[in-house]
Amino acid sequence: MKTTAFDLSRWSSQQLARVEQALSDWVAAGGVVDDEHPAPAALREGMRYAVLDGGKRLRPLLVLAAREAVATGEAATATAGLDDAALRAACSAELIHAYSLVHDDMPCMDNDILRRGKPTVHVQFGEAQALLAGDALQALAFELLTPEGSEAPASVQATLCRLLAQAAGYQGMAGGQAIDLASIGLALSEDQLRCMHRLKTGALLQGSVMMGAACKQGALSATAHAALRDYGAALGLAFQVVDDILDVTSDAATLGKTVGKDAAQDKPTYVSLLGLERSTAYAQELLAQALAALDASDLPNTQALRALADMVVNRSS
Amino acid sequence: MKTTAFDLSRWSSQQLARVEQALSDWVAAGGVVDDEHPAPAALREGMRYAVLDGGKRLRPLLVLAAREAVATGEAATATAGLDDAALRAACSAELIHAYSLVHDDMPCMDNDILRRGKPTVHVQFGEAQALLAGDALQALAFELLTPEGSEAPASVQATLCRLLAQAAGYQGMAGGQAIDLASIGLALSEDQLRCMHRLKTGALLQGSVMMGAACKQGALSATAHAALRDYGAALGLAFQVVDDILDVTSDAATLGKTVGKDAAQDKPTYVSLLGLERSTAYAQELLAQALAALDASDLPNTQALRALADMVVNRSS
Repeated sequence: MKTTAFDLSRWSSQQLARVEQALSDWVAAGGVVDDEHPAPAALREGMRYAVLDGGKRLRPLLVLAAREAVATGEAATATAGLDDAALRAACSAELIHAYSLVHDDMPCMDNDILRRGKPTVHVQFGEAQALLAGDALQALAFELLTPEGSEAPASVQATLCRLLAQAAGYQGMAGGQAIDLASIGLALSEDQLRCMHRLKTGALLQGSVMMGAACKQGALSATAHAALRDYGAALGLAFQVVDDILDVTSDAATLGKTVGKDAAQDKPTYVSLLGLERSTAYAQELLAQALAALDASDLPNTQALRALADMVVNRSS
Repeated sequence: MKTTAFDLSRWSSQQLARVEQALSDWVAAGGVVDDEHPAPAALREGMRYAVLDGGKRLRPLLVLAAREAVATGEAATATAGLDDAALRAACSAELIHAYSLVHDDMPCMDNDILRRGKPTVHVQFGEAQALLAGDALQALAFELLTPEGSEAPASVQATLCRLLAQAAGYQGMAGGQAIDLASIGLALSEDQLRCMHRLKTGALLQGSVMMGAACKQGALSATAHAALRDYGAALGLAFQVVDDILDVTSDAATLGKTVGKDAAQDKPTYVSLLGLERSTAYAQELLAQALAALDASDLPNTQALRALADMVVNRSS
């Protein structure tokens, strides 16, 4: 395992400044909708409330870190377009994540009233507006990826749409949520739990990595592709194992959301299945897998990806 | 206005055979999700229930009719890829329409229990599965547009994603639904009602036309672009005016859904604003506008578009 003096905090601050600015500029900031009508204004407000001022932005950071890992040897004229595509991909992944939280918190799903220390969208704006805000955020994610007159190659834009759609859809996040719904009160095997989380959380995290890797001139080598895919899979699963751990070990003030709710809702988790100690060891094992995948790649510039994996596993909120 | 011996019924049957087959093949037909888990199976079932075996497929027909109107003078080698892109665009527009109906019927929105003569998705599968099925259908729409290894130019794929996302999002369908929600019990002006419907229904109908027109080798002429945009706008509005008329003049057996619900919910409609007679005249005026827009274009092959406009305005269900 390579060791570096990489400063994640500094790198993240720089990237997040771009991401937050872009989200603020791009998420329903203005637009052609007639401002005399209160409803689109309320819809825009709900969308912005769901996205801005909150969240660790892990998915955007993964996109941008993966873009960094593949952005070597490209023509200088290609860089601006690919950097813009990566920033758009970063924001689009966050919009998909944000919409999923809005819908997931609704009464017919998890019925949660607190998110990132604030009332959830349906509590603040009503259920119907929450439903529509989530729907509109999903559409906006794909709109962001395909701007008119973009300098990014159209093939990159199309690939980004495909990766995001697959990560979000029934063979990804939505499929995982459906398994989650049906699993309440059931005794899942470890294989079944892993399958659920690979879809529910893992698909979009891995998809974020692969979207960043798609922002590249020319094709990725098969070795690099496999390495990033394996890194994303291990990191995605590690994220959920740690989430399950924090749900029992953290408190609401640290976590910014209701704690202990998995157990209260009788949902299967890694902690309920493996216990706390084995879950913690498993998270470290997945971290090692993620880093080993990068070691096996021919990618020269993976410091940010490494540091993010470490942060995911060793975070406290 | 040109007169033709165009046989819409025959043309539609041919197109719908392709569309229905494609939808059945592409909508959650199988996939990598582990079949031991009941939930993705239930999710797939909900998605298929929402999409298959029902609906006039107006949006797919508009996509394919617009593709026909622009498919002249292209290289023989380009045709297969563009035809495939148009079929995918046709299905993607239908998926967005289908998802919007699923969410619109939910208790927090219109709370409707009957759709196309069948129980609505949330009645059949539960609210949470309906929410997820709608979400997954939207993602699938964008996945369909960007298949790996497609023969269609990547620029066409990216344009299709942008057009669909804009039509579906907060400056399109979702925005219109938000206005609709906020308008219950309000006395809207005709301008405000038009604005709402241009977004709520018009954006996706017009977007379908523009998606079909994007399935073309090279750029569309500015004249043709403007003609199709104007055609789509007039047709989109006409569709809603006729919908409002049918809501008071039709019966549930013909319409396949609850009738009189606009008045019961105290929603503003063209009939409540203009009365039945003036609404009927307005629909005919919009039809004339749609046809005049095509007359002003340099497009040679607009029979299907013309016949569809006529069908939209003179339909009885």
